[in-house]
Amino acid sequence: MRARVFVRLKRGILDPQGTAVKRALEGLGYREVQDLRVGRVLEMELDATQPDQARGRLEEMCRRLLANPVTEEFTVEIVEDGGRPRLA
Amino acid sequence: MRARVFVRLKRGILDPQGTAVKRALEGLGYREVQDLRVGRVLEMELDATQPDQARGRLEEMCRRLLANPVTEEFTVEIVEDGGRPRLA
Repeated sequence: MRARVFVRLKRGILDPQGTAVKRALEGLGYREVQDLRVGRVLEMELDATQPDQARGRLEEMCRRLLANPVTEEFTVEIVEDGGRPRLA
Repeated sequence: MRARVFVRLKRGILDPQGTAVKRALEGLGYREVQDLRVGRVLEMELDATQPDQARGRLEEMCRRLLANPVTEEFTVEIVEDGGRPRLA
């Protein structure tokens, strides 16, 4: 089973990397970008068969290791085999 | 309109960050993780109304600035207002 974990900064937290990229895009003429934030995505292949159980384990991984609970939030998506992602 | 751009290492390129995270997860007992790769996700708010045109501009941004064409590949998702992402 495949899964994607998104880790992004919480809304109130400044994102200097996102600001720098937005400014660089503006400099290249892409003025339609109103807001831009940069996060991480962890794409995983899991040895698991139960999507709900896998999701629970992934959320636990986020709390224990993958995300900083003070500054970051996370979303878990299970990608069913051959199917579309199921949003958490 | 909202959009997400995923930038990830190409298949053949080593991902030391992903390897380190996978090993750390194993150390915590999460042995179901068979493969793990770390990428970037850029979440944007765009001043645009035509999804196809926006997608074309985003792919151009990736080629010009957001992705390294030698080592990275990218995917663009347009998130319709209130709807599900449309995969590129």
